[in-house]
Amino acid sequence: MSGFIGEFFGTMVLIVLGTGCGAAINLKKSYAKGSNWLYVTIAWGMAVTFGVYVAASLGSEGHLNPAVTLGFAFFGYFPWSEVGPYLLGQFLGAFIGAALVAIQFHPHFKETKTPEEGNSVGIFATGPAIKNNLFNFLSETIATFIFVFALLNLGDFDKGLKPIAVGLLIMVIGQALGGTTGFALNPARDWSPRLAYTVLPIPNKSDANWGYAWVPMVGPIVGGILAAGLQYLIK
Amino acid sequence: MSGFIGEFFGTMVLIVLGTGCGAAINLKKSYAKGSNWLYVTIAWGMAVTFGVYVAASLGSEGHLNPAVTLGFAFFGYFPWSEVGPYLLGQFLGAFIGAALVAIQFHPHFKETKTPEEGNSVGIFATGPAIKNNLFNFLSETIATFIFVFALLNLGDFDKGLKPIAVGLLIMVIGQALGGTTGFALNPARDWSPRLAYTVLPIPNKSDANWGYAWVPMVGPIVGGILAAGLQYLIK
Amino acid sequence: MSGFIGEFFGTMVLIVLGTGCGAAINLKKSYAKGSNWLYVTIAWGMAVTFGVYVAASLGSEGHLNPAVTLGFAFFGYFPWSEVGPYLLGQFLGAFIGAALVAIQFHPHFKETKTPEEGNSVGIFATGPAIKNNLFNFLSETIATFIFVFALLNLGDFDKGLKPIAVGLLIMVIGQALGGTTGFALNPARDWSPRLAYTVLPIPNKSDANWGYAWVPMVGPIVGGILAAGLQYLIK
Amino acid sequence: MSGFIGEFFGTMVLIVLGTGCGAAINLKKSYAKGSNWLYVTIAWGMAVTFGVYVAASLGSEGHLNPAVTLGFAFFGYFPWSEVGPYLLGQFLGAFIGAALVAIQFHPHFKETKTPEEGNSVGIFATGPAIKNNLFNFLSETIATFIFVFALLNLGDFDKGLKPIAVGLLIMVIGQALGGTTGFALNPARDWSPRLAYTVLPIPNKSDANWGYAWVPMVGPIVGGILAAGLQYLIK
Repeated sequence: MSGFIGEFFGTMVLIVLGTGCGAAINLKKSYAKGSNWLYVTIAWGMAVTFGVYVAASLGSEGHLNPAVTLGFAFFGYFPWSEVGPYLLGQFLGAFIGAALVAIQFHPHFKETKTPEEGNSVGIFATGPAIKNNLFNFLSETIATFIFVFALLNLGDFDKGLKPIAVGLLIMVIGQALGGTTGFALNPARDWSPRLAYTVLPIPNKSDANWGYAWVPMVGPIVGGILAAGLQYLIK
Repeated sequence: MSGFIGEFFGTMVLIVLGTGCGAAINLKKSYAKGSNWLYVTIAWGMAVTFGVYVAASLGSEGHLNPAVTLGFAFFGYFPWSEVGPYLLGQFLGAFIGAALVAIQFHPHFKETKTPEEGNSVGIFATGPAIKNNLFNFLSETIATFIFVFALLNLGDFDKGLKPIAVGLLIMVIGQALGGTTGFALNPARDWSPRLAYTVLPIPNKSDANWGYAWVPMVGPIVGGILAAGLQYLIK
Repeated sequence: MSGFIGEFFGTMVLIVLGTGCGAAINLKKSYAKGSNWLYVTIAWGMAVTFGVYVAASLGSEGHLNPAVTLGFAFFGYFPWSEVGPYLLGQFLGAFIGAALVAIQFHPHFKETKTPEEGNSVGIFATGPAIKNNLFNFLSETIATFIFVFALLNLGDFDKGLKPIAVGLLIMVIGQALGGTTGFALNPARDWSPRLAYTVLPIPNKSDANWGYAWVPMVGPIVGGILAAGLQYLIK
Repeated sequence: MSGFIGEFFGTMVLIVLGTGCGAAINLKKSYAKGSNWLYVTIAWGMAVTFGVYVAASLGSEGHLNPAVTLGFAFFGYFPWSEVGPYLLGQFLGAFIGAALVAIQFHPHFKETKTPEEGNSVGIFATGPAIKNNLFNFLSETIATFIFVFALLNLGDFDKGLKPIAVGLLIMVIGQALGGTTGFALNPARDWSPRLAYTVLPIPNKSDANWGYAWVPMVGPIVGGILAAGLQYLIK
């Protein structure tokens, strides 16, 4: 049960901070409107940091990410028996986090009438800079591979100050490898907020681009499994 | 007594650095004039970090914030008997911190004649990007809820290097959730500098917008209590 | 063998993140297009941080840099018998890291037709802001001297959270001393990605500027040896 | 002797990184040309961090600053008998650091013909945004007071990862209080590089503004003594 609780609240914190950043830089009249990619990568990095702190304190390992949980499980770094509650906590927590952002920025969603003005699914979910099924998939796979591989070599990443290192890792991956597809790296981070955008009564909504949703679902899982497999081979 | 001393000097340091940033980016001829929201969130985050260091070293727990003190007290994380000296230290320290900023930037206040040029209460206190009583209140409540909830899961947040984590937490909350109302999160941070702006002989002053002051007073307290209550329930 | 493994994968992570940043800020349609020097220095700094984490976890000392390995060896801080596997791991790992970036950004390389548009060897390797053989050499020598000298005084730089300090050191050296030649500081960081750019089928390639390649090869090695020599003398 | 050695090399590292940043953002054709105040404050902060690491490793306490040394000595936090070698190391090390920057950027100094183009004493030393003897002095006094007061409450600031906290403290003081006079905070940081600019054969030099040099000399010393005195009283 503590696995579910930890992942639920940890992922909620991750997503309220991460997609909150998406709203803050895109919606009209927000004080952060127009902030740049450096800002985005710092905010998503630290969103992960405090998600990990919350999750670890409440009793899970602070994965917050099905690609991590599945990758770890495939090669014996995590018990399969806990995969179910972890994934459930991640997807549900991410949905609640996105819902809180919809409340937080409600007047700003009302002010921002069109995707051109900044009101789009891009606040909540990722999309490709250049649409290309193969390379978009490879991009998410490579970025998640590097993330999970480094994560496995950080030591106890949910202890002491290590969650800050995890956040910095997300940040630099966003800076180096996120310019292509927006570094989802995490199916729950992309899928649940996309669903929230689809079903919640957010003003001036537009298309949720579900046609792309398989990429940030499958790419990160493949990347996570490859990383855990490499680690299993070499260490 | 050490509780009062710690909170007084810690909050003084927090506010001299935080509202100093407000002056630095707004007033004419300041070398930091025009700095962006990333700058603001980094500065306020680190302002909290060093406020916590000072407070903890001088003998308090480094709350620096009535919303933290009251939220903790409501659910038994802090003794009610110390709430009085803590709150007094926080409000007084914040006033002195703002007064030091008025001296530090005196020639710049004289150069900056109007709110349009950058001389406004916004240097010292928060205001909404879109005026809306309900959602401004909800915004401060949600942001403070996330802050205090994460804070309760950081471990001993005033020990070792954890004050840096507290500062990064404030930073990312500002980046994700501060675009709406300027992330007061803290009644003392908003109320005492607003009072200082009202009563001190600062050149070219304009309206202090006391009509808004209830939002950053009540919202953070409600958010802090909700966070401590959730923590009490689940851990 | 673990020395080779550690340096290989550590340098791979360093270079996929570092040259990934180069691609992200230069290539058309990247979300990070046009990011500034602050961004570059943060990304390269953290690239080193996580390279060191990976290397140290896999069994090497986390040099990731022939200038460090040779400088240390010259003055007895590292055994000569391990220099061979370390250097081999560094150069090979850097090549693979650059190759991953070529895949990650393949559609963006196709979109970006000319050096003026952002497709140049500068994504992968360094070049001088003002061409001047003597001072370009001195610039890399001085910057690497400061880097290795500080590194030798950090304590066990591959343990605990110290790899974050190493990354911040690279960052500030880039901010202070990198404006002249782009702070290679590391022959493997410059030479292997330059080779990758030369031999891999990257779209719209232009000249790889091998005439300059001796500077970021020789300058850093001289700087590293001078730093280790100074440390040997004074401590 | 180790006190002198530590302060000499630590301050050399501080100043080569700090004034290097000044050159990097001001001189023509530097890759960092035009970087903003956020960049400046980050670079100076981390310059101090690695100066402290070097100094502490080589045997001093990592003051790097006569205002710290004198403030500490006045109230018994540091022995008067070591003040001489510390101050000598600080002023000499700062001079050598500035000289290295003059070499590092020599071709850029040649390219940059006038103060308007970016070649001025402002690369090496501080100056007021608004000239006002009294308030410039107060500004340096207040900023240094806050710095030294917080420093005294950081714990062993030269151990473990605490030098990173010291650097972040300098950074946020620059962000909050540096917009007025450029946050010298340190007589050696201002005076020795100003002297280096005056006596070294730097191309296209202009006036070194010695008329202002008393402010960043006297203000920081007064601020440091006040901070140590307050600490002595309350703790």
